[in-house]
Amino acid sequence: MLPEAESAAPAMTAVLTAVLTEGPLSRVTLARRLGLSQAAVTKAARPLIELGYLQELAATERSGPGAGRPASPLAIRADREFFVGVKITADELIGVLCDLGAQVRKSIHRPLLDKDVDYVLTELGHLVDDLIDDRSRTRRLGLAVSGDVDRATGLVRYSPFLHWRDVPLRELAEKATGLTVTVENDVKALTTAEHWFGEGVGAESFALVTVGTGIGCGLVVNGRLVSGSHGVAGEIGHIGVDVNGPACHCGGRGCVEAIAGTDAIVSRAGLSFDDAVNAARAGDVRVSAVFAAAGEAIGCGIAAVANLVGPAHIVVSGEGLAAYDLFETHIRAGFERQAFGAAAQCPLSVRPLPFEEWARGAATVSIQAFVAS
Amino acid sequence: MLPEAESAAPAMTAVLTAVLTEGPLSRVTLARRLGLSQAAVTKAARPLIELGYLQELAATERSGPGAGRPASPLAIRADREFFVGVKITADELIGVLCDLGAQVRKSIHRPLLDKDVDYVLTELGHLVDDLIDDRSRTRRLGLAVSGDVDRATGLVRYSPFLHWRDVPLRELAEKATGLTVTVENDVKALTTAEHWFGEGVGAESFALVTVGTGIGCGLVVNGRLVSGSHGVAGEIGHIGVDVNGPACHCGGRGCVEAIAGTDAIVSRAGLSFDDAVNAARAGDVRVSAVFAAAGEAIGCGIAAVANLVGPAHIVVSGEGLAAYDLFETHIRAGFERQAFGAAAQCPLSVRPLPFEEWARGAATVSIQAFVAS
Repeated sequence: MLPEAESAAPAMTAVLTAVLTEGPLSRVTLARRLGLSQAAVTKAARPLIELGYLQELAATERSGPGAGRPASPLAIRADREFFVGVKITADELIGVLCDLGAQVRKSIHRPLLDKDVDYVLTELGHLVDDLIDDRSRTRRLGLAVSGDVDRATGLVRYSPFLHWRDVPLRELAEKATGLTVTVENDVKALTTAEHWFGEGVGAESFALVTVGTGIGCGLVVNGRLVSGSHGVAGEIGHIGVDVNGPACHCGGRGCVEAIAGTDAIVSRAGLSFDDAVNAARAGDVRVSAVFAAAGEAIGCGIAAVANLVGPAHIVVSGEGLAAYDLFETHIRAGFERQAFGAAAQCPLSVRPLPFEEWARGAATVSIQAFVAS
Repeated sequence: MLPEAESAAPAMTAVLTAVLTEGPLSRVTLARRLGLSQAAVTKAARPLIELGYLQELAATERSGPGAGRPASPLAIRADREFFVGVKITADELIGVLCDLGAQVRKSIHRPLLDKDVDYVLTELGHLVDDLIDDRSRTRRLGLAVSGDVDRATGLVRYSPFLHWRDVPLRELAEKATGLTVTVENDVKALTTAEHWFGEGVGAESFALVTVGTGIGCGLVVNGRLVSGSHGVAGEIGHIGVDVNGPACHCGGRGCVEAIAGTDAIVSRAGLSFDDAVNAARAGDVRVSAVFAAAGEAIGCGIAAVANLVGPAHIVVSGEGLAAYDLFETHIRAGFERQAFGAAAQCPLSVRPLPFEEWARGAATVSIQAFVAS
């Protein structure tokens, strides 16, 4: 057994991850951050440079005490490899082509007329063909699907909006596209993108709450995505905030989603979502109260996240933000009331979320799988 | 700069931690688990053996293909160093003397007649003197206090039961005892003991819920204790489960603790806690409903933990368990109703918790600080 060979792969992954998410970085900085010797960093970087994933930037002069020879920081070569990411929704496929640095190079929407698995896979094949320019440098595809998804096996256990149960999506998509496929829950994929390339870079913990048809939450705790030992995590939508509240489709009572999901608002207002938004904006007291209760419930759910895991910051996003003017005060009021002590200091930031971001999240999961391989 | 020296300390900590919590372990197993080369493990172990913290057990024959020379597993020498742990409650100090393996060697209770900080420190000094037999091998003291505690600085920001605010407990206790002191929130200390020496060993995630005067929760996620970016984590007692429920001392509404804490039960039943327990056991419908609502609220809070972080398992414990027969069905009912999908598979185990365990938790935090040093 070669002890060195045994330990080389984790070091390569660690070096590539650090340069990808926080680079350019000098070997000295990498050694310090990763708790490795400089010799180990140099050794791990060499094959990555030879394979064209990393490059040495021009040496910069170092200043200050202890400055030795000039440092040549390591950076990624973003166009060395491309990754396709696709978010599958009930009525369209949203696809992007990203480079190794998760920059979107190309983006295509393709409508879906049916939820049938075979049909969706055929459409996926066409979308992927349209996105890829250079097959030799595009070998991986990430898929994001809402619902209960097992990333390890690529199985979609249950996706309510697609009416899919136990679909072995990774296997089927690999056959349909000839690419190496990863499948992840859409909120977790989005959170992974934030963690590697967004506001969450370097954060020990943060939370991303998505408001829309479903109310979801992606969590990073102790520097890593929370995936849940039993496959469930981040289900903020099913925290019970009103023991006497409405029944939820999940079997629970007074769940955040049963009060604040798009369907709940439609059903409680007795109007289409757009009509409900218009009525509330026009000052309709009854419909405004529906949005107020929804905001309170979301705020209360966010406070539960802050009380339990204490993220450094929380980003609120999702397609429901179109009506955020009707929610915001109540979200903040519910959060401030229920956040315990210093948990109320956790900053809540609100950010719109273009649908392409979900697809980029899917591509990011695929980049992550590549880096780990 | 010596790159090797730079990386030696983390490897020593990793090796000592692994042997302490999962040993005896061979160098080969250590290398594999820690992602280190065998050479690095051997190098990290050498000073630990020389200082007497680790010992080589007699070589055992290895069998199976690829078996080389016999492996001599590394084990800790538990009596190399002792650690004092003290839980400070409003009416007594509970102290234990533990060895390096967190086995309790001695345990003493000392009543407190006052909550005055100086008085408590004087009593702490006496307790420590009574616990320590060998000063040369006992250099560290861990303290556990309920409330908002900053482990990094040893400051007790707020402890409601002790009426303490901003007490620099580490500094004061170091002066009073001459030992190196760590201070931690009591629930976090208990969770640390479970994680290093109890049911949580090797678990990527688990939760410990304590039921009593307060309702608390310690969490391990992604292999490490969750400490909360803003100092707050595991505050299951302040999750809002009933938006129209009773006001809580924290300013929230319908918090789990406002429905299920000992004080809440006393106030809702209009009886002392013991009388309430007796009345419910005798079949009093009104008082039974108070316990039922309490159990439901706790179950709902536990479901929020399972839905958000998906721990591998959840242990329920605490002094409130004395009345567990009155709660249990309702805790499980509330949990099962609100746990989302596969989150309901998370096993809930119930375990009594002798008060010494809290003190052992405090000692464990001190062992952890020693290992990290």
